[in-house]
Amino acid sequence: MEKKISDKVISRLTLYHCILDDYIVDNIEFISSKQIATLLKIDDSQVRKDINILNNSGKCRVGYIVKELKKSIEKTLGFAKKKNAFIIGAGNLGMALAKYDNFTNYGLNIIALFDNDKKKIGGTINYKMVLDIEKLPNLARKTNVDIAILTVPKAFAQSTADFLVKANIKYIWNFAPVVLNVPDDVQVWNENLMGNFLQFTYNI
Amino acid sequence: MEKKISDKVISRLTLYHCILDDYIVDNIEFISSKQIATLLKIDDSQVRKDINILNNSGKCRVGYIVKELKKSIEKTLGFAKKKNAFIIGAGNLGMALAKYDNFTNYGLNIIALFDNDKKKIGGTINYKMVLDIEKLPNLARKTNVDIAILTVPKAFAQSTADFLVKANIKYIWNFAPVVLNVPDDVQVWNENLMGNFLQFTYNI
Repeated sequence: MEKKISDKVISRLTLYHCILDDYIVDNIEFISSKQIATLLKIDDSQVRKDINILNNSGKCRVGYIVKELKKSIEKTLGFAKKKNAFIIGAGNLGMALAKYDNFTNYGLNIIALFDNDKKKIGGTINYKMVLDIEKLPNLARKTNVDIAILTVPKAFAQSTADFLVKANIKYIWNFAPVVLNVPDDVQVWNENLMGNFLQFTYNI
Repeated sequence: MEKKISDKVISRLTLYHCILDDYIVDNIEFISSKQIATLLKIDDSQVRKDINILNNSGKCRVGYIVKELKKSIEKTLGFAKKKNAFIIGAGNLGMALAKYDNFTNYGLNIIALFDNDKKKIGGTINYKMVLDIEKLPNLARKTNVDIAILTVPKAFAQSTADFLVKANIKYIWNFAPVVLNVPDDVQVWNENLMGNFLQFTYNI
C-alpha cells in the first residue's frame, strides 16, 4: 500500500522537480534545501521535511544530488505511470494544453483532441489529431481512456460533461469556470483559475 | 483591518460563487448548504462553516437567498476592487486567458497583451491590443499596472520575468512550468498545472 501524500506536498514536490530540471540543464550537481526554499520563498525546514518523505538516498555533505533527488520525486509521484487522456475542445486553451511541453515528462499522454467544429476536425496540433466529438465514446472504449481535460466554453461545459460521463469517462480535469454536476463515481478536479487569482491578489 | 481568509476557503468560496451564478441563470431563489456540498462532493458542515465567515444576512428557513449569498461572497473576496493586469505572451494560452469570460466579473481587468512577435503585435484579442513587449515598462509606469500574467514558453520565462521585475511589476501569475527567481518584493503565484494533475490522478 502506497503512503498517501497530501496535496500540498505533491504540489511542492512538483515545483522542486521544476527547479531540479533547471539545475540539470545548467549542469549543477548538488542542491541544498536552502536553495530550493529561497527560490520558492518558503522555509527550508519545510523543504527538508518534504524530501524526507521520498526515501531519497542522494543526500551528502554539500546537499542533495540533483539527479538522485529528481529520480526520487519521479518515483514517489509516479511519473513513470503513463496516464492517457483526451482534450475536449480544440480552442485556444485546448491547443495550449496540447502544446504544453511538460505533460509527457510527467506521465500525461494526450491521445487526441475532440471538437464539434467541422473546421477544426481533421487537423493536428502538436502531432495530435483533432477528432469529431461524436467519435469519443467509441475511441474511449477501444483505448480504455477515462481521463478527459475539459476546455470547452462555460456554456457547453455541463452538457459536454454529461456526454463524457455517458462515454464512461471517470476523471474530468475541468478548466471551465463551472461546477459540474456528475455522478458519485466520476471525479472532477476544478482548475479554479479565478479562485487562484483571488488568493494571489487578496492583499492587494 | 480585514480578516485574513485561508487560501482553501477562498478557493471554495469561488466555487460556491460559480454555483450561485448558475442558480441565478436558472432563476432559482434559494440554495441549501447540502446542495452546494453535493455538487462539490464535500461535507455540508464545511459549506456552512465557510459561509459563516461572510457575515451573510440572507439565511432563511429554506436555505440561503442566492442573490444575497452571491453578493456576500463578492464583498468578502473583493470582486469590486478592480485589478488591472497585463498578459505577457500572445500565444494560445495568452489568447485563451484574454478571452476568459469570467475575469472581469471577478475584478480582473486585462489592459493589454504583450509579445515580441511582429506578426502578432498590432492585433487585438477580445478587444484587447497586442503590444510590443518593449513598450511594457513605459505603459506599466503610466497606468500603474503591477500585475503580469506570464504565459510565455518555458525557455523564455526567466528572462521575461527579469524584464518584468525591471519594469516594476510586483505580482507575477506564472503559467510557465518554471520556478522563477525574483527579488523578495515580487510575489509569484505558480499555476502549477502538473502538480494539480498529479494530485488529481495520484490514486489512479
